[in-house]
Amino acid sequence: MGDPCGIGPEILAMALRDGAVPGGFVVGDVGVMRRAAAVIGGVPVAVLDAPAEALNAPPRCIPVWQPDGLPAGLAALPWGQVHADAGRAAAVCIRQAVALVQAGQAAALVTSPIHKEALAAAGEPWPGHTELLQDLAGGAPVRMMLANDELRTVLVTIHVSLRRAIEGVTFDAVLSTIRIAHDAARRWGLAAPRIAVAGLNPHAGEGGLFGEEELTVIGPAVQAARAEGIDARGPFAPDTVFMRARHTADHPGEFDMVVAQYHDQGLIPVKYLGVEHGVNVTLGLPFVRTSPDHGTAFDLAGSGRASPASLIAAARLARQLAGG
Amino acid sequence: MGDPCGIGPEILAMALRDGAVPGGFVVGDVGVMRRAAAVIGGVPVAVLDAPAEALNAPPRCIPVWQPDGLPAGLAALPWGQVHADAGRAAAVCIRQAVALVQAGQAAALVTSPIHKEALAAAGEPWPGHTELLQDLAGGAPVRMMLANDELRTVLVTIHVSLRRAIEGVTFDAVLSTIRIAHDAARRWGLAAPRIAVAGLNPHAGEGGLFGEEELTVIGPAVQAARAEGIDARGPFAPDTVFMRARHTADHPGEFDMVVAQYHDQGLIPVKYLGVEHGVNVTLGLPFVRTSPDHGTAFDLAGSGRASPASLIAAARLARQLAGG
Repeated sequence: MGDPCGIGPEILAMALRDGAVPGGFVVGDVGVMRRAAAVIGGVPVAVLDAPAEALNAPPRCIPVWQPDGLPAGLAALPWGQVHADAGRAAAVCIRQAVALVQAGQAAALVTSPIHKEALAAAGEPWPGHTELLQDLAGGAPVRMMLANDELRTVLVTIHVSLRRAIEGVTFDAVLSTIRIAHDAARRWGLAAPRIAVAGLNPHAGEGGLFGEEELTVIGPAVQAARAEGIDARGPFAPDTVFMRARHTADHPGEFDMVVAQYHDQGLIPVKYLGVEHGVNVTLGLPFVRTSPDHGTAFDLAGSGRASPASLIAAARLARQLAGG
Repeated sequence: MGDPCGIGPEILAMALRDGAVPGGFVVGDVGVMRRAAAVIGGVPVAVLDAPAEALNAPPRCIPVWQPDGLPAGLAALPWGQVHADAGRAAAVCIRQAVALVQAGQAAALVTSPIHKEALAAAGEPWPGHTELLQDLAGGAPVRMMLANDELRTVLVTIHVSLRRAIEGVTFDAVLSTIRIAHDAARRWGLAAPRIAVAGLNPHAGEGGLFGEEELTVIGPAVQAARAEGIDARGPFAPDTVFMRARHTADHPGEFDMVVAQYHDQGLIPVKYLGVEHGVNVTLGLPFVRTSPDHGTAFDLAGSGRASPASLIAAARLARQLAGG
């Protein structure tokens, strides 16, 4: 469900009403979803006793399975504001949804946007989805992948300053990222994923002239991955590797995914053609988890004007990665 | 002409043969251009006594104006190799071409690729075109702009490691870049250029959480530019500002140009849709100078297989910026 005060409930309602997520259901509060359904013009909510009932839900309705332990009065919270109950509800839904996936009662997890401050107000120690999911999954290393129809990038470092990102580009971090990307792509059915690794510096350092990290860190990590039988290549010049990996009908991509060294290196190309198509995927978890590539958009919440496009793309990709 | 051992002469020959550069002429060696004409299947070379004759050159020929001072035997140099005479010839042609533009005998300068090592072997102290042109123009500060039909980015820092690029993002460097971008766009005819300034860090630092440069350096430089009457805005999140500036028939760009803080931040989006459309423009010179966004491609030189697309785009943009 995501944060009940953000756009999550209403974009979920739109996606389910329009049949964009066959077999999908909301782990959330029935009252919150009824309010969201009203915002988009009135759509029936189907209250599920068990997740499996979602497969037989009538068309153009919103199937909701409500977990225990949600705070009362969620549907009366004001739109677009940080509230501890909203953060608590979001966390309960995530934990319950993960339990369903781990119990085999759901095939994959798609998360709606949550608000970091609401999560903190609820006393949750996690800055966001990724860290909470990692904890629920036992602490294995995870990586963020951004994907659209043309490009998949997996990030070595994410939400830190560019200075700290450079410090975070270590042999272990790069090799671990390559391994996680490789293992995930194998699980999706790619027999021998072609993984391009971007350099850190302009022209991938131009032989050490514009930086040493390609020679001392990234190159050795690529070689170590290759020694394990992974088809990793690079480091490549960052300004052209994404163009080379871009996959379209008339331009087959040279690689299946690109390992990017820092947030904007990977996200600029994925978002360039339109943010609404980007999907965030967490790699390294023992289950499939995707999410739309946007936040709670508090300024739009309750207006019915938010776009469900990225959420729908996330749900489609989750289905595809789960083999559905 | 560029380096006689690279692809410059043959892509020039293709572009002029095909009428893609009306009124254009080569400042170069007649023998080198005859060799290039032979490589692409035999096209007549028209030897000009004066640049103005280019306007009356017959169609489907290659007009060449040969400057004094070129080394002998250039047309016998092997393709695809570094040679001091090649570097010397390239430098002579650049100096003479600038002299023509400054004397009003040519409207703009389009440079073919040169080779840094050949230039160094010839004893030239300049690492590339930009520095040489800056010197010829009296040392005013210049900036590199990369442009295609959809996007223009102007770079605060260029060919240095990412670590050094961060050090190069100073108040003076950002403000100077904004001013140079503004002045150039005004000369091209934009009355009030809309200039977006990208942040350095993810999410433009998210209020200091992921880095301070937006608060201490970039934001103040944007404000200083605005105080001078420049329509500069930002700093914006780097991962979405290029998408927002992207200008297409069905997606009008929010900005006329984007100031990018480092090489790959600006070049990844410009190159993402295809390197053949990118044009390099030097801003801050007292004349228009463009160049294709690729190098000498020694591995292709003499084969006739190199694409003139970026050179043609560079010539078209030069004409447009010069008001032609």
